[in-house]
Amino acid sequence: MKKQNIAIVGAGLVGSLWAVYLAKKGHNVHVFDRRNDIRKVKIIQGKSINLALSDRGWKGLTGAGIENEIHKVALPMSGRLMHSVSGELTYQPYGKENQAIYSVSRGLLNQTLLKCADEFENVTLYFEHQCKDLDIKTNTLKFERADTGEKVEMSFDRIFGTDGAFSAVRARMQRMDRFDYSQEYLSHGYKELEIPPAADGSYQLDPLALHIWPRGEFMMIALPNPDKSFTCTLFLAFEGKHSFENLKTEEQVTEFFHSHFADAAALMPEMLQDFFTNPTSSLVMTKCNPWNVEDKICLMGDAAHAIVPFYGQGMNCGFEDCSVLNELIENIGDDWEKIFSEFTRLRKPAGDAILELALRNYIEMRDKTADKQFLLQKKIEAKFSSKHPTLWTPLYSQVTFSHIPYDQALKNGIRQDEIMKKVMDRPDIDTVWESDEIEQHILKLVQEN
Amino acid sequence: MKKQNIAIVGAGLVGSLWAVYLAKKGHNVHVFDRRNDIRKVKIIQGKSINLALSDRGWKGLTGAGIENEIHKVALPMSGRLMHSVSGELTYQPYGKENQAIYSVSRGLLNQTLLKCADEFENVTLYFEHQCKDLDIKTNTLKFERADTGEKVEMSFDRIFGTDGAFSAVRARMQRMDRFDYSQEYLSHGYKELEIPPAADGSYQLDPLALHIWPRGEFMMIALPNPDKSFTCTLFLAFEGKHSFENLKTEEQVTEFFHSHFADAAALMPEMLQDFFTNPTSSLVMTKCNPWNVEDKICLMGDAAHAIVPFYGQGMNCGFEDCSVLNELIENIGDDWEKIFSEFTRLRKPAGDAILELALRNYIEMRDKTADKQFLLQKKIEAKFSSKHPTLWTPLYSQVTFSHIPYDQALKNGIRQDEIMKKVMDRPDIDTVWESDEIEQHILKLVQEN
Repeated sequence: MKKQNIAIVGAGLVGSLWAVYLAKKGHNVHVFDRRNDIRKVKIIQGKSINLALSDRGWKGLTGAGIENEIHKVALPMSGRLMHSVSGELTYQPYGKENQAIYSVSRGLLNQTLLKCADEFENVTLYFEHQCKDLDIKTNTLKFERADTGEKVEMSFDRIFGTDGAFSAVRARMQRMDRFDYSQEYLSHGYKELEIPPAADGSYQLDPLALHIWPRGEFMMIALPNPDKSFTCTLFLAFEGKHSFENLKTEEQVTEFFHSHFADAAALMPEMLQDFFTNPTSSLVMTKCNPWNVEDKICLMGDAAHAIVPFYGQGMNCGFEDCSVLNELIENIGDDWEKIFSEFTRLRKPAGDAILELALRNYIEMRDKTADKQFLLQKKIEAKFSSKHPTLWTPLYSQVTFSHIPYDQALKNGIRQDEIMKKVMDRPDIDTVWESDEIEQHILKLVQEN
Repeated sequence: MKKQNIAIVGAGLVGSLWAVYLAKKGHNVHVFDRRNDIRKVKIIQGKSINLALSDRGWKGLTGAGIENEIHKVALPMSGRLMHSVSGELTYQPYGKENQAIYSVSRGLLNQTLLKCADEFENVTLYFEHQCKDLDIKTNTLKFERADTGEKVEMSFDRIFGTDGAFSAVRARMQRMDRFDYSQEYLSHGYKELEIPPAADGSYQLDPLALHIWPRGEFMMIALPNPDKSFTCTLFLAFEGKHSFENLKTEEQVTEFFHSHFADAAALMPEMLQDFFTNPTSSLVMTKCNPWNVEDKICLMGDAAHAIVPFYGQGMNCGFEDCSVLNELIENIGDDWEKIFSEFTRLRKPAGDAILELALRNYIEMRDKTADKQFLLQKKIEAKFSSKHPTLWTPLYSQVTFSHIPYDQALKNGIRQDEIMKKVMDRPDIDTVWESDEIEQHILKLVQEN
């Protein structure tokens, strides 16, 4: 394989990981980021955003050889623990025994990946370099240094845009003829809050689960941190009856939490201060097509497909971009036009599908996880799947614990929903769900399809 | 009303017209354009893009008092004349007798509007001023002069973005939180060709019609020019069996035209040269939301809603933006926040609807106008409408010859389609369509709805 002079714009999770992949192949890799070196930023555990790492993400990390280092600081969550308004708990396992998703600190993960990339002699890191423009004809990147104001221009054989949902590389591509692009914001925003460790230094909630307070039109979730705190995220509409707009005073916020999240509020001494100090953030979804410009430029991660966080797949999908593109390079060789166009062809439908899945999971998490029929359906699916694992993998497991392309998983999930609708329509389903008759009914429906 | 210091970015059709509206109200109006003064450009009739002016557009022009001047150079087209592969002609009137759409030269119209705006003392025109950025906090526009390279900054009470499908004002808004935006290209592109006047200086085709060569997946249209030529536009896929990609050689182009447009090709001596000289252009659709930033910035015309040209409504819709916004200003007064947010609330659904209508009309023009059943359906509708004008206005007439909001017209059209589907499903419809029975059937269906 011919050695390439490569730029990666964006030293976030996907950019840092991709730098390791390319460095291992012997290319000259230049990684640019507009911010300061994240390794110099002190990560306060419990204050950092947490991500849920699952199988697709682990596979990406394994390709870079750093899975063991991350396992040390990753906390397994084997299921969802739903909190009702009265504080009653309902547990729903994510998959089979031994299957879990892992709570990891975004900051810590980014630091580790960057350290890993920096160990290669053929990787050069540039911080405080903001990408201002890109000459597509000559594949020249134009940066402005945040520290000195200096303008820097460099040309490359290949440029990878891994600069996130508001990608500068994609913004330049947006001005090209026949480039499709959309950005759409959810009507809901989010705010982070904290459940600190107990006085004796222990967790105040079960740390082996992802906690959800589903309330129909809004919800709160909590993920454990290694310092025994939980990072809580409140997802709520910007406007309307239950909305951030209507939470302006301390009285309103107190009343809102005591009505809807009483058990959690009791564990959050700093809740009011956090609420008014922490920002209310928006949630954007972006799509674009194509993801590449000839053999020159390729988008990966959020720059190509920014999704909403409700399936915990944003980072996992970005790491899977690395695995898939790496495989294409290994199979195709030096034909970068083919490598990039195949990447668009394979991954664009996958990106669209995981966005669709994440939007559906938002409804599921905030609304359906409080619904007894929905929980029963999941139990029936789990039972059938354990008896007939080759015939039925629950959708959540396909997305989280498999490497089936997202678009295929979405198709399978729609087919499963059609089958389960017929099963759940039986008026006596509550009493007969464990019977052989139901099992035979599902078997028949699966085989008919 | 308080006098405002106003910027209009973009001196195209909508920007020039809107300048006249605002000037008449006594505001200080500054109009910027990145190009040279279009009045200095020689408009070669027959070479300029033609637009189809209809009632919504005329209303906008009347508001500026220049409808008479345009009438002199506008050519009425009272219907579609469809050309079959064998050259057979079928005529379909657009509306009632005396109703027509008008072929006008885009360049000439723009020149006239700009001249009209320039007559006001309170209008200042700035050419070769490219908008590079916009400080939303202070409502300051930042321009770079194309002639001198000089950087110019000016602040305004209100800024109107009328700078087209690739609007710089909207591009700045796109970087704001919670601003939705999408751009999507059709898989079809277009190329302009010409049918020159006959040797004796007369038209080679009937000038009182818009000519269509509908061929299913592609089509050609022709609009008359005052110099007795026709401007033809070929709409064709970029890739695929019948596509620009497959028209690379003179042999391929000749063969393509002789197979599909033999009667037109016979009238185009310069066809091959035009085909290889004129560019192949793409067709973009854009949507965004909201159209305004508080009381500061407002998008109008293509900057807010770039649509595909198949309903001939792009300019008409932009001129209607002027009528509607003008009415809001007259009703609301000095509350610009309310004026702008009402404009978004009223016009955003209208913009989405005319895009949807234009896409549907694309299918109709290239595909259905060659279908006998479709033409019969239109005849039945026209007959029913002429007998019951208060009960039925054909969708085309609602869009073209009325001021019903586009979103209402789309809804009405969908309802009419449901009714006509039932009528056309009668196996004997070919023979009984003029009967009282059919009239009564439609009457009953209309009254049921």
